[in-house]
Amino acid sequence: MSIGSKPALLGDRKPPRRRHLYEGRTKTLFDGPDPGTFVLYFKDNCKKQDGVSVIGKGVINNRLSEMFMVRLNEIGVQTHLIRRLNMREQLVRATQNLPCHVIVHNLAIDNFAKRLGLEEGMLLPEAIPEFHVKSKDYAESVISERHITALGWADEDELDCIKEMTQRINDFLCGQFIALGLRLIRYQLEFGRVYLSDYMGDTQIVLIDEISADSCCVLDIESGERLDIDSLSGEDLGHCDQRSRYQKLAEKFGLLKAGGPADLLIREEIL
Amino acid sequence: MSIGSKPALLGDRKPPRRRHLYEGRTKTLFDGPDPGTFVLYFKDNCKKQDGVSVIGKGVINNRLSEMFMVRLNEIGVQTHLIRRLNMREQLVRATQNLPCHVIVHNLAIDNFAKRLGLEEGMLLPEAIPEFHVKSKDYAESVISERHITALGWADEDELDCIKEMTQRINDFLCGQFIALGLRLIRYQLEFGRVYLSDYMGDTQIVLIDEISADSCCVLDIESGERLDIDSLSGEDLGHCDQRSRYQKLAEKFGLLKAGGPADLLIREEIL
Repeated sequence: MSIGSKPALLGDRKPPRRRHLYEGRTKTLFDGPDPGTFVLYFKDNCKKQDGVSVIGKGVINNRLSEMFMVRLNEIGVQTHLIRRLNMREQLVRATQNLPCHVIVHNLAIDNFAKRLGLEEGMLLPEAIPEFHVKSKDYAESVISERHITALGWADEDELDCIKEMTQRINDFLCGQFIALGLRLIRYQLEFGRVYLSDYMGDTQIVLIDEISADSCCVLDIESGERLDIDSLSGEDLGHCDQRSRYQKLAEKFGLLKAGGPADLLIREEIL
Repeated sequence: MSIGSKPALLGDRKPPRRRHLYEGRTKTLFDGPDPGTFVLYFKDNCKKQDGVSVIGKGVINNRLSEMFMVRLNEIGVQTHLIRRLNMREQLVRATQNLPCHVIVHNLAIDNFAKRLGLEEGMLLPEAIPEFHVKSKDYAESVISERHITALGWADEDELDCIKEMTQRINDFLCGQFIALGLRLIRYQLEFGRVYLSDYMGDTQIVLIDEISADSCCVLDIESGERLDIDSLSGEDLGHCDQRSRYQKLAEKFGLLKAGGPADLLIREEIL
Protein backbone atom coordinates (compact mmCIF):
# COMPACT_ATOMS: atom_id res chain seq x y z
CA MET A 1 0.00 0.00 0.00
CA SER A 2 1.52 3.33 -1.02
CA ILE A 3 1.75 6.08 1.59
CA GLY A 4 -1.24 8.36 1.57
CA SER A 5 -3.53 5.99 -0.26
CA LYS A 6 -6.90 5.28 1.30
CA PRO A 7 -6.49 2.30 3.64
CA ALA A 8 -8.36 -0.80 2.54
CA LEU A 9 -10.62 -2.33 5.14
CA LEU A 10 -9.32 -5.85 5.49
CA GLY A 11 -12.67 -6.79 7.00
CA ASP A 12 -14.14 -6.71 3.52
CA ARG A 13 -11.15 -8.16 1.65
CA LYS A 14 -10.74 -11.87 1.14
CA PRO A 15 -7.18 -13.17 1.19
CA PRO A 16 -6.30 -14.20 -2.36
CA ARG A 17 -5.30 -17.54 -3.95
CA ARG A 18 -6.49 -19.86 -1.22
CA ARG A 19 -8.98 -22.67 -1.42
CA HIS A 20 -12.10 -21.62 0.36
CA LEU A 21 -13.40 -24.45 2.58
CA TYR A 22 -16.24 -22.99 4.61
CA GLU A 23 -18.02 -19.67 4.89
CA GLY A 24 -19.54 -19.04 8.31
CA ARG A 25 -21.40 -15.98 9.50
CA THR A 26 -18.44 -14.54 11.41
CA LYS A 27 -15.48 -16.58 10.15
CA THR A 28 -14.12 -18.08 6.93
CA LEU A 29 -12.03 -21.23 6.72
CA PHE A 30 -9.31 -21.66 4.08
CA ASP A 31 -6.86 -24.38 3.20
CA GLY A 32 -3.59 -23.77 5.04
CA PRO A 33 -0.08 -23.40 3.60
CA ASP A 34 0.98 -26.90 4.75
CA PRO A 35 -0.81 -30.25 4.73
CA GLY A 36 -2.86 -30.67 7.90
CA THR A 37 -3.36 -26.94 8.37
CA PHE A 38 -6.25 -24.51 7.89
CA VAL A 39 -6.36 -20.73 8.01
CA LEU A 40 -9.18 -19.23 10.06
CA TYR A 41 -10.22 -15.70 9.09
CA PHE A 42 -12.23 -13.54 11.54
CA LYS A 43 -14.80 -11.28 9.86
CA ASP A 44 -16.45 -8.10 11.15
CA ASN A 45 -19.95 -9.29 10.29
CA CYS A 46 -22.40 -9.06 13.14
CA LYS A 47 -23.28 -12.53 14.38
CA LYS A 48 -27.00 -11.74 14.64
CA GLN A 49 -27.71 -9.21 11.85
CA ASP A 50 -27.26 -9.80 8.15
CA GLY A 51 -25.32 -7.09 6.36
CA VAL A 52 -24.22 -5.31 9.54
CA SER A 53 -20.51 -4.86 10.23
CA VAL A 54 -18.97 -4.13 13.61
CA ILE A 55 -15.70 -2.52 12.58
CA GLY A 56 -12.67 -4.13 14.25
CA LYS A 57 -14.68 -6.92 15.88
CA GLY A 58 -12.91 -9.64 13.90
CA VAL A 59 -9.55 -8.29 15.06
CA ILE A 60 -10.65 -8.37 18.70
CA ASN A 61 -12.06 -11.89 18.43
CA ASN A 62 -8.90 -13.13 16.75
CA ARG A 63 -6.78 -11.71 19.59
CA LEU A 64 -9.10 -12.94 22.37
CA SER A 65 -9.31 -16.44 20.93
CA GLU A 66 -5.55 -16.58 20.44
CA MET A 67 -5.01 -15.50 24.07
CA PHE A 68 -7.36 -18.12 25.51
CA MET A 69 -6.06 -20.94 23.31
CA VAL A 70 -2.39 -20.14 23.97
CA ARG A 71 -3.13 -20.24 27.69
CA LEU A 72 -5.08 -23.50 27.35
CA ASN A 73 -2.22 -25.08 25.40
CA GLU A 74 0.08 -24.02 28.25
CA ILE A 75 -1.90 -25.95 30.87
CA GLY A 76 -2.02 -29.04 28.66
CA VAL A 77 -5.47 -28.69 27.06
CA GLN A 78 -5.01 -29.39 23.35
CA THR A 79 -6.45 -26.83 20.92
CA HIS A 80 -6.32 -26.42 17.15
CA LEU A 81 -4.29 -23.19 17.37
CA ILE A 82 -0.81 -23.29 15.86
CA ARG A 83 -0.26 -19.52 15.87
CA ARG A 84 -1.86 -16.22 15.00
CA LEU A 85 -0.77 -15.10 11.51
CA ASN A 86 -1.91 -11.49 11.49
CA MET A 87 -4.65 -9.25 12.84
CA ARG A 88 -7.47 -11.34 11.35
CA GLU A 89 -6.08 -14.79 10.74
CA GLN A 90 -4.93 -17.84 12.67
CA LEU A 91 -3.07 -20.88 11.45
CA VAL A 92 -4.84 -23.91 12.93
CA ARG A 93 -4.62 -27.69 12.75
CA ALA A 94 -6.89 -29.29 10.17
CA THR A 95 -9.58 -31.23 12.02
CA GLN A 96 -12.69 -33.21 11.30
CA ASN A 97 -15.31 -31.19 13.16
CA LEU A 98 -17.92 -32.94 15.28
CA PRO A 99 -21.50 -32.08 14.23
CA CYS A 100 -22.41 -31.08 17.79
CA HIS A 101 -21.04 -28.49 20.16
CA VAL A 102 -21.07 -27.90 23.91
CA ILE A 103 -22.74 -24.95 25.60
CA VAL A 104 -21.47 -24.51 29.14
CA HIS A 105 -23.79 -22.72 31.58
CA ASN A 106 -22.42 -21.20 34.77
CA LEU A 107 -25.35 -18.88 35.43
CA ALA A 108 -28.98 -19.61 34.54
CA ILE A 109 -30.28 -16.98 32.14
CA ASP A 110 -32.61 -16.56 29.17
CA ASN A 111 -34.01 -19.71 27.62
CA PHE A 112 -31.89 -22.00 29.82
CA ALA A 113 -33.45 -20.54 33.00
CA LYS A 114 -36.96 -20.65 31.49
CA ARG A 115 -36.88 -24.24 30.26
CA LEU A 116 -35.48 -25.54 33.57
CA GLY A 117 -37.66 -23.33 35.78
CA LEU A 118 -34.68 -21.65 37.43
CA GLU A 119 -34.42 -18.15 38.80
CA GLU A 120 -33.06 -15.74 36.16
CA GLY A 121 -29.41 -14.89 36.87
CA MET A 122 -28.91 -17.67 39.41
CA LEU A 123 -25.34 -18.91 39.87
CA LEU A 124 -25.50 -22.68 39.27
CA PRO A 125 -24.12 -24.87 42.09
CA GLU A 126 -22.01 -26.56 39.41
CA ALA A 127 -21.46 -25.72 35.75
CA ILE A 128 -23.83 -27.54 33.38
CA PRO A 129 -22.41 -28.43 29.95
CA GLU A 130 -25.07 -29.23 27.33
CA PHE A 131 -24.54 -30.93 23.98
CA HIS A 132 -26.33 -29.17 21.12
CA VAL A 133 -26.68 -29.94 17.42
CA LYS A 134 -24.90 -27.28 15.38
CA SER A 135 -27.27 -24.97 13.57
CA LYS A 136 -26.85 -21.61 11.93
CA ASP A 137 -30.02 -20.10 13.37
CA TYR A 138 -28.84 -20.47 16.98
CA ALA A 139 -31.93 -22.50 17.85
CA GLU A 140 -31.40 -24.46 21.04
CA SER A 141 -31.54 -28.18 20.40
CA VAL A 142 -30.15 -30.15 23.29
CA ILE A 143 -29.08 -33.72 22.65
CA SER A 144 -27.93 -36.47 25.00
CA GLU A 145 -24.66 -38.37 24.96
CA ARG A 146 -26.64 -41.33 23.61
CA HIS A 147 -27.57 -39.34 20.48
CA ILE A 148 -23.89 -38.72 19.84
CA THR A 149 -22.67 -42.30 20.27
CA ALA A 150 -25.70 -43.89 18.55
CA LEU A 151 -25.24 -41.67 15.49
CA GLY A 152 -21.52 -42.39 15.46
CA TRP A 153 -20.50 -38.75 15.85
CA ALA A 154 -18.06 -39.66 18.64
CA ASP A 155 -17.32 -42.84 20.57
CA GLU A 156 -17.46 -43.29 24.35
CA ASP A 157 -13.74 -42.57 24.82
CA GLU A 158 -13.99 -39.38 22.78
CA LEU A 159 -17.04 -38.29 24.77
CA ASP A 160 -15.20 -38.87 28.05
CA CYS A 161 -12.33 -36.83 26.67
CA ILE A 162 -14.66 -33.98 25.66
CA LYS A 163 -16.30 -33.94 29.10
CA GLU A 164 -12.96 -33.91 30.88
CA MET A 165 -11.62 -31.15 28.62
CA THR A 166 -14.80 -29.12 29.12
CA GLN A 167 -14.44 -29.33 32.89
CA ARG A 168 -10.82 -28.14 32.73
CA ILE A 169 -11.55 -25.40 30.19
CA ASN A 170 -14.44 -24.12 32.30
CA ASP A 171 -12.47 -24.01 35.56
CA PHE A 172 -9.59 -22.24 33.81
CA LEU A 173 -11.79 -19.73 31.96
CA CYS A 174 -13.97 -18.99 35.00
CA GLY A 175 -10.78 -18.23 36.91
CA GLN A 176 -9.65 -15.75 34.25
CA PHE A 177 -13.01 -13.99 34.13
CA ILE A 178 -13.61 -13.79 37.91
CA ALA A 179 -10.10 -12.36 38.47
CA LEU A 180 -11.15 -9.42 36.27
CA GLY A 181 -14.50 -8.93 38.02
CA LEU A 182 -16.47 -10.72 35.28
CA ARG A 183 -18.85 -13.66 35.27
CA LEU A 184 -18.66 -16.06 32.35
CA ILE A 185 -22.42 -16.66 32.15
CA ARG A 186 -22.34 -19.21 29.34
CA TYR A 187 -20.30 -19.95 26.24
CA GLN A 188 -19.92 -22.33 23.36
CA LEU A 189 -17.14 -24.85 22.76
CA GLU A 190 -16.53 -26.85 19.60
CA PHE A 191 -14.37 -29.92 19.30
CA GLY A 192 -12.68 -31.61 16.37
CA ARG A 193 -10.82 -34.81 15.60
CA VAL A 194 -7.20 -34.77 14.45
CA TYR A 195 -5.90 -37.82 12.54
CA LEU A 196 -2.43 -38.44 13.89
CA SER A 197 -1.49 -41.11 11.32
CA ASP A 198 -2.99 -43.04 8.40
CA TYR A 199 -4.32 -45.60 10.83
CA MET A 200 -7.91 -44.43 11.32
CA GLY A 201 -8.03 -45.20 15.06
CA ASP A 202 -5.07 -42.97 15.85
CA THR A 203 -6.96 -39.76 16.57
CA GLN A 204 -7.05 -36.99 19.12
CA ILE A 205 -9.83 -34.65 20.23
CA VAL A 206 -8.86 -30.97 20.28
CA LEU A 207 -10.71 -27.73 21.02
CA ILE A 208 -11.46 -25.86 17.77
CA ASP A 209 -13.36 -22.80 16.55
CA GLU A 210 -13.03 -19.78 18.83
CA ILE A 211 -13.33 -18.55 22.40
CA SER A 212 -14.17 -14.92 21.86
CA ALA A 213 -16.59 -12.07 22.42
CA ASP A 214 -18.93 -13.82 19.96
CA SER A 215 -18.95 -17.19 21.72
CA CYS A 216 -19.14 -15.99 25.35
CA CYS A 217 -21.89 -14.26 27.37
CA VAL A 218 -20.20 -12.09 29.97
CA LEU A 219 -21.45 -10.05 32.92
CA ASP A 220 -19.52 -7.21 34.57
CA ILE A 221 -20.19 -7.93 38.25
CA GLU A 222 -19.72 -4.38 39.56
CA SER A 223 -21.72 -2.52 36.90
CA GLY A 224 -24.19 -5.32 36.17
CA GLU A 225 -23.53 -4.62 32.46
CA ARG A 226 -23.57 -7.33 29.81
CA LEU A 227 -20.44 -7.36 27.60
CA ASP A 228 -22.01 -9.34 24.76
CA ILE A 229 -24.94 -8.97 22.41
CA ASP A 230 -26.47 -12.39 22.91
CA SER A 231 -29.55 -11.32 24.83
CA LEU A 232 -30.46 -8.61 22.27
CA SER A 233 -32.65 -8.89 19.20
CA GLY A 234 -34.60 -6.68 16.79
CA GLU A 235 -34.73 -3.02 17.80
CA ASP A 236 -32.61 -3.49 20.95
CA LEU A 237 -29.81 -4.88 18.82
CA GLY A 238 -30.00 -1.92 16.45
CA HIS A 239 -29.76 0.60 19.28
CA CYS A 240 -26.94 -1.19 21.07
CA ASP A 241 -23.40 0.11 20.50
CA GLN A 242 -22.08 -3.34 19.62
CA ARG A 243 -18.54 -2.13 19.00
CA SER A 244 -18.18 -0.73 22.53
CA ARG A 245 -19.17 -4.09 24.04
CA TYR A 246 -16.46 -5.92 22.12
CA GLN A 247 -13.97 -3.21 23.04
CA LYS A 248 -14.81 -3.34 26.74
CA LEU A 249 -14.12 -7.06 26.87
CA ALA A 250 -10.82 -6.63 25.02
CA GLU A 251 -9.86 -3.82 27.42
CA LYS A 252 -10.65 -5.96 30.47
CA PHE A 253 -8.24 -8.59 29.17
CA GLY A 254 -5.53 -5.99 28.50
CA LEU A 255 -5.66 -6.37 24.70
CA LEU A 256 -6.36 -2.69 23.98
CA LYS A 257 -3.58 -1.14 25.98
CA ALA A 258 -1.97 1.52 23.82
CA GLY A 259 -4.24 3.50 21.56
CA GLY A 260 -7.51 1.67 22.07
CA PRO A 261 -9.31 0.22 19.06
CA ALA A 262 -7.72 2.83 16.76
CA ASP A 263 -4.39 1.20 17.54
CA LEU A 264 -5.69 -2.16 16.38
CA LEU A 265 -7.03 -0.69 13.13
CA ILE A 266 -3.83 1.19 12.35
CA ARG A 267 -1.72 -1.87 12.92
CA GLU A 268 -4.07 -3.81 10.71
CA GLU A 269 -3.54 -1.41 7.81
CA ILE A 270 0.22 -1.75 8.03
CA LEU A 271 0.09 -5.50 7.45
CA MET B 1 -11.45 1.21 72.65
CA SER B 2 -12.05 4.84 73.68
CA ILE B 3 -11.58 7.56 71.11
CA GLY B 4 -8.06 8.93 71.11
CA SER B 5 -6.49 6.00 72.89
CA LYS B 6 -3.47 4.36 71.33
CA PRO B 7 -4.68 1.69 68.91
CA ALA B 8 -3.76 -1.82 69.95
CA LEU B 9 -2.07 -3.94 67.30
CA LEU B 10 -4.35 -6.90 66.90
CA GLY B 11 -1.42 -8.81 65.43
CA ASP B 12 -0.02 -9.22 68.93
CA ARG B 13 -3.33 -9.72 70.71
CA LYS B 14 -4.88 -13.14 71.13
CA PRO B 15 -8.68 -13.28 71.11
CA PRO B 16 -9.83 -14.05 74.67
CA ARG B 17 -11.83 -16.92 76.19
CA ARG B 18 -11.38 -19.50 73.48
CA ARG B 19 -9.90 -22.95 73.66
CA HIS B 20 -6.59 -22.90 71.88
CA LEU B 21 -6.24 -25.97 69.63
CA TYR B 22 -3.08 -25.44 67.61
CA GLU B 23 -0.35 -22.83 67.40
CA GLY B 24 1.27 -22.67 63.95
CA ARG B 25 3.99 -20.33 62.81
CA THR B 26 1.62 -18.03 60.92
CA LYS B 27 -1.82 -19.07 62.16
CA THR B 28 -3.58 -20.09 65.35
CA LEU B 29 -6.55 -22.44 65.54
CA PHE B 30 -9.25 -22.04 68.18
CA ASP B 31 -12.44 -23.87 69.04
CA GLY B 32 -15.35 -22.25 67.21
CA PRO B 33 -18.58 -20.83 68.66
CA ASP B 34 -20.68 -23.82 67.48
CA PRO B 35 -20.02 -27.57 67.47
CA GLY B 36 -18.18 -28.57 64.30
CA THR B 37 -16.54 -25.18 63.86
CA PHE B 38 -13.05 -23.77 64.36
CA VAL B 39 -11.77 -20.20 64.26
CA LEU B 40 -8.62 -19.63 62.22
CA TYR B 41 -6.55 -16.61 63.24
CA PHE B 42 -3.95 -15.15 60.80
CA LYS B 43 -0.82 -13.82 62.51
CA ASP B 44 1.73 -11.29 61.25
CA ASN B 45 4.69 -13.54 62.10
CA CYS B 46 7.11 -14.06 59.25
CA LYS B 47 6.86 -17.61 57.96
CA LYS B 48 10.64 -18.00 57.72
CA GLN B 49 12.09 -15.85 60.54
CA ASP B 50 11.48 -16.31 64.24
CA GLY B 51 10.47 -13.15 66.07
CA VAL B 52 9.99 -11.08 62.90
CA SER B 53 6.61 -9.50 62.21
CA VAL B 54 5.38 -8.29 58.83
CA ILE B 55 2.77 -5.74 59.87
CA GLY B 56 -0.60 -6.32 58.19
CA LYS B 57 0.43 -9.58 56.55
CA GLY B 58 -2.09 -11.64 58.50
CA VAL B 59 -4.85 -9.29 57.36
CA ILE B 60 -3.84 -9.67 53.71
CA ASN B 61 -3.58 -13.46 53.94
CA ASN B 62 -6.98 -13.68 55.62
CA ARG B 63 -8.55 -11.64 52.79
CA LEU B 64 -6.73 -13.49 50.00
CA SER B 65 -7.60 -16.91 51.39
CA GLU B 66 -11.24 -15.86 51.90
CA MET B 67 -11.41 -14.63 48.28
CA PHE B 68 -9.98 -17.84 46.80
CA MET B 69 -12.10 -20.14 48.97
CA VAL B 70 -15.33 -18.23 48.35
CA ARG B 71 -14.66 -18.51 44.60
CA LEU B 72 -13.82 -22.22 44.92
CA ASN B 73 -17.04 -22.84 46.86
CA GLU B 74 -18.89 -21.09 44.01
CA ILE B 75 -17.59 -23.52 41.39
CA GLY B 76 -18.44 -26.52 43.56
CA VAL B 77 -15.05 -27.28 45.15
CA GLN B 78 -15.70 -27.85 48.86
CA THR B 79 -13.57 -25.89 51.31
CA HIS B 80 -13.56 -25.50 55.09
CA LEU B 81 -14.49 -21.80 54.89
CA ILE B 82 -17.84 -20.83 56.41
CA ARG B 83 -17.18 -17.07 56.44
CA ARG B 84 -14.62 -14.44 57.34
CA LEU B 85 -15.33 -13.09 60.84
CA ASN B 86 -13.13 -10.00 60.90
CA MET B 87 -9.80 -8.71 59.56
CA ARG B 88 -7.78 -11.58 61.02
CA GLU B 89 -10.19 -14.45 61.60
CA GLN B 90 -12.22 -16.96 59.64
CA LEU B 91 -14.95 -19.29 60.84
CA VAL B 92 -14.19 -22.70 59.32
CA ARG B 93 -15.58 -26.23 59.46
CA ALA B 94 -13.91 -28.49 62.01
CA THR B 95 -11.95 -31.14 60.14
CA GLN B 96 -9.60 -34.00 60.83
CA ASN B 97 -6.48 -32.86 58.99
CA LEU B 98 -4.55 -35.32 56.85
CA PRO B 99 -0.88 -35.64 57.89
CA CYS B 100 0.30 -34.93 54.35
CA HIS B 101 -0.21 -32.01 52.00
CA VAL B 102 -0.01 -31.42 48.27
CA ILE B 103 2.51 -29.12 46.61
CA VAL B 104 1.44 -28.25 43.07
CA HIS B 105 4.22 -27.26 40.66
CA ASN B 106 3.37 -25.33 37.47
CA LEU B 107 6.89 -24.02 36.84
CA ALA B 108 10.11 -25.86 37.71
CA ILE B 109 12.15 -23.79 40.15
CA ASP B 110 14.51 -24.15 43.13
CA ASN B 111 14.85 -27.60 44.64
CA PHE B 112 12.13 -29.09 42.39
CA ALA B 113 14.07 -28.16 39.23
CA LYS B 114 17.36 -29.38 40.74
CA ARG B 115 16.19 -32.77 41.90
CA LEU B 116 14.47 -33.54 38.59
CA GLY B 117 17.22 -32.09 36.41
CA LEU B 118 14.90 -29.54 34.79
CA GLU B 119 15.76 -26.11 33.47
CA GLU B 120 15.20 -23.44 36.15
CA GLY B 121 12.00 -21.49 35.45
CA MET B 122 10.66 -23.93 32.88
CA LEU B 123 6.88 -24.01 32.40
CA LEU B 124 5.87 -27.65 32.96
CA PRO B 125 3.87 -29.27 30.12
CA GLU B 126 1.35 -30.24 32.79
CA ALA B 127 1.08 -29.33 36.45
CA ILE B 128 2.75 -31.82 38.81
CA PRO B 129 1.14 -32.26 42.22
CA GLU B 130 3.40 -33.88 44.81
CA PHE B 131 2.37 -35.36 48.14
CA HIS B 132 4.60 -34.29 51.02
CA VAL B 133 4.69 -35.17 54.69
CA LYS B 134 3.84 -32.10 56.76
CA SER B 135 6.82 -30.66 58.60
CA LYS B 136 7.45 -27.37 60.30
CA ASP B 137 10.92 -26.85 58.88
CA TYR B 138 9.72 -26.78 55.23
CA ALA B 139 11.99 -29.70 54.35
CA GLU B 140 10.88 -31.36 51.12
CA SER B 141 9.88 -34.96 51.75
CA VAL B 142 7.94 -36.37 48.82
CA ILE B 143 5.81 -39.44 49.44
CA SER B 144 3.88 -41.67 47.06
CA GLU B 145 0.17 -42.48 47.09
CA ARG B 146 1.14 -45.90 48.41
CA HIS B 147 2.64 -44.33 51.55
CA ILE B 148 -0.67 -42.62 52.20
CA THR B 149 -2.92 -45.66 51.74
CA ALA B 150 -0.54 -48.11 53.44
CA LEU B 151 -0.29 -45.90 56.53
CA GLY B 152 -4.06 -45.41 56.56
CA TRP B 153 -3.89 -41.63 56.19
CA ALA B 154 -6.48 -41.72 53.39
CA ASP B 155 -8.21 -44.48 51.45
CA GLU B 156 -8.19 -44.91 47.66
CA ASP B 157 -11.50 -43.07 47.20
CA GLU B 158 -10.29 -40.13 49.28
CA LEU B 159 -7.03 -40.03 47.30
CA ASP B 160 -8.98 -39.96 44.02
CA CYS B 161 -11.07 -37.15 45.42
CA ILE B 162 -7.97 -35.17 46.47
CA LYS B 163 -6.39 -35.61 43.02
CA GLU B 164 -9.56 -34.50 41.24
CA MET B 165 -9.99 -31.51 43.55
CA THR B 166 -6.33 -30.56 43.08
CA GLN B 167 -6.73 -30.58 39.28
CA ARG B 168 -9.80 -28.34 39.47
CA ILE B 169 -8.26 -26.00 42.03
CA ASN B 170 -5.11 -25.66 39.93
CA ASP B 171 -6.94 -24.90 36.67
CA PHE B 172 -9.14 -22.34 38.46
CA LEU B 173 -6.26 -20.66 40.33
CA CYS B 174 -3.95 -20.60 37.29
CA GLY B 175 -6.75 -18.86 35.40
CA GLN B 176 -7.06 -16.19 38.09
CA PHE B 177 -3.32 -15.56 38.21
CA ILE B 178 -2.69 -15.51 34.45
CA ALA B 179 -5.57 -13.06 33.91
CA LEU B 180 -3.66 -10.62 36.15
CA GLY B 181 -0.32 -11.17 34.40
CA LEU B 182 0.98 -13.52 37.11
CA ARG B 183 2.33 -17.06 37.08
CA LEU B 184 1.40 -19.31 39.98
CA ILE B 185 4.78 -21.05 40.16
CA ARG B 186 3.91 -23.50 42.94
CA TYR B 187 1.74 -23.59 46.02
CA GLN B 188 0.65 -25.77 48.87
CA LEU B 189 -2.77 -27.31 49.46
CA GLU B 190 -3.99 -29.05 52.60
CA PHE B 191 -7.00 -31.30 52.87
CA GLY B 192 -9.12 -32.43 55.80
CA ARG B 193 -11.89 -34.88 56.53
CA VAL B 194 -15.32 -33.73 57.69
CA TYR B 195 -17.49 -36.26 59.54
CA LEU B 196 -20.98 -35.74 58.19
CA SER B 197 -22.70 -38.01 60.74
CA ASP B 198 -21.89 -40.34 63.63
CA TYR B 199 -21.41 -43.17 61.18
CA MET B 200 -17.62 -43.20 60.69
CA GLY B 201 -17.78 -43.90 56.95
CA ASP B 202 -19.88 -40.85 56.19
CA THR B 203 -17.09 -38.39 55.50
CA GLN B 204 -16.15 -35.74 52.98
CA ILE B 205 -12.77 -34.37 51.89
CA VAL B 206 -12.55 -30.57 51.89
CA LEU B 207 -9.79 -28.07 51.18
CA ILE B 208 -8.51 -26.58 54.45
CA ASP B 209 -5.74 -24.26 55.72
CA GLU B 210 -5.11 -21.25 53.45
CA ILE B 211 -4.45 -20.12 49.89
CA SER B 212 -2.52 -16.96 50.48
CA ALA B 213 0.66 -15.00 49.94
CA ASP B 214 2.33 -17.42 52.37
CA SER B 215 1.31 -20.61 50.57
CA CYS B 216 1.88 -19.48 46.96
CA CYS B 217 5.03 -18.69 44.96
CA VAL B 218 4.10 -16.05 42.40
CA LEU B 219 5.92 -14.46 39.47
CA ASP B 220 4.97 -11.14 37.86
CA ILE B 221 5.39 -11.98 34.16
CA GLU B 222 6.07 -8.44 32.90
CA SER B 223 8.54 -7.33 35.57
CA GLY B 224 10.01 -10.78 36.28
CA GLU B 225 9.60 -9.96 39.98
CA ARG B 226 8.77 -12.58 42.60
CA LEU B 227 5.79 -11.65 44.81
CA ASP B 228 6.66 -14.08 47.63
CA ILE B 229 9.55 -14.64 49.99
CA ASP B 230 9.94 -18.37 49.45
CA SER B 231 13.22 -18.28 47.53
CA LEU B 232 14.93 -16.03 50.11
CA SER B 233 16.91 -17.01 53.17
CA GLY B 234 19.42 -15.54 55.62
CA GLU B 235 20.69 -12.11 54.66
CA ASP B 236 18.54 -11.86 51.51
CA LEU B 237 15.46 -12.31 53.63
CA GLY B 238 16.56 -9.59 56.05
CA HIS B 239 17.11 -7.09 53.23
CA CYS B 240 13.87 -7.89 51.42
CA ASP B 241 10.92 -5.56 52.01
CA GLN B 242 8.60 -8.43 52.84
CA ARG B 243 5.61 -6.18 53.46
CA SER B 244 5.69 -4.72 49.97
CA ARG B 245 5.60 -8.19 48.39
CA TYR B 246 2.46 -9.12 50.32
CA GLN B 247 0.93 -5.75 49.44
CA LYS B 248 1.70 -6.10 45.73
CA LEU B 249 -0.12 -9.41 45.56
CA ALA B 250 -3.12 -7.99 47.43
CA GLU B 251 -3.16 -5.00 45.06
CA LYS B 252 -3.08 -7.24 41.99
CA PHE B 253 -6.18 -9.01 43.27
CA GLY B 254 -7.94 -5.70 43.98
CA LEU B 255 -7.94 -6.14 47.76
CA LEU B 256 -6.12 -2.87 48.52
CA LYS B 257 -8.29 -0.50 46.56
CA ALA B 258 -8.97 2.52 48.74
CA GLY B 259 -6.20 3.65 51.05
CA GLY B 260 -3.69 0.88 50.50
CA PRO B 261 -2.44 -1.09 53.49
CA ALA B 262 -3.14 1.86 55.80
CA ASP B 263 -6.80 1.37 55.01
CA LEU B 264 -6.63 -2.24 56.11
CA LEU B 265 -4.90 -1.29 59.37
CA ILE B 266 -7.38 1.46 60.19
CA ARG B 267 -10.33 -0.79 59.57
CA GLU B 268 -8.72 -3.40 61.75
CA GLU B 269 -8.51 -1.00 64.70
CA ILE B 270 -12.20 -0.16 64.45
CA LEU B 271 -13.26 -3.77 64.97
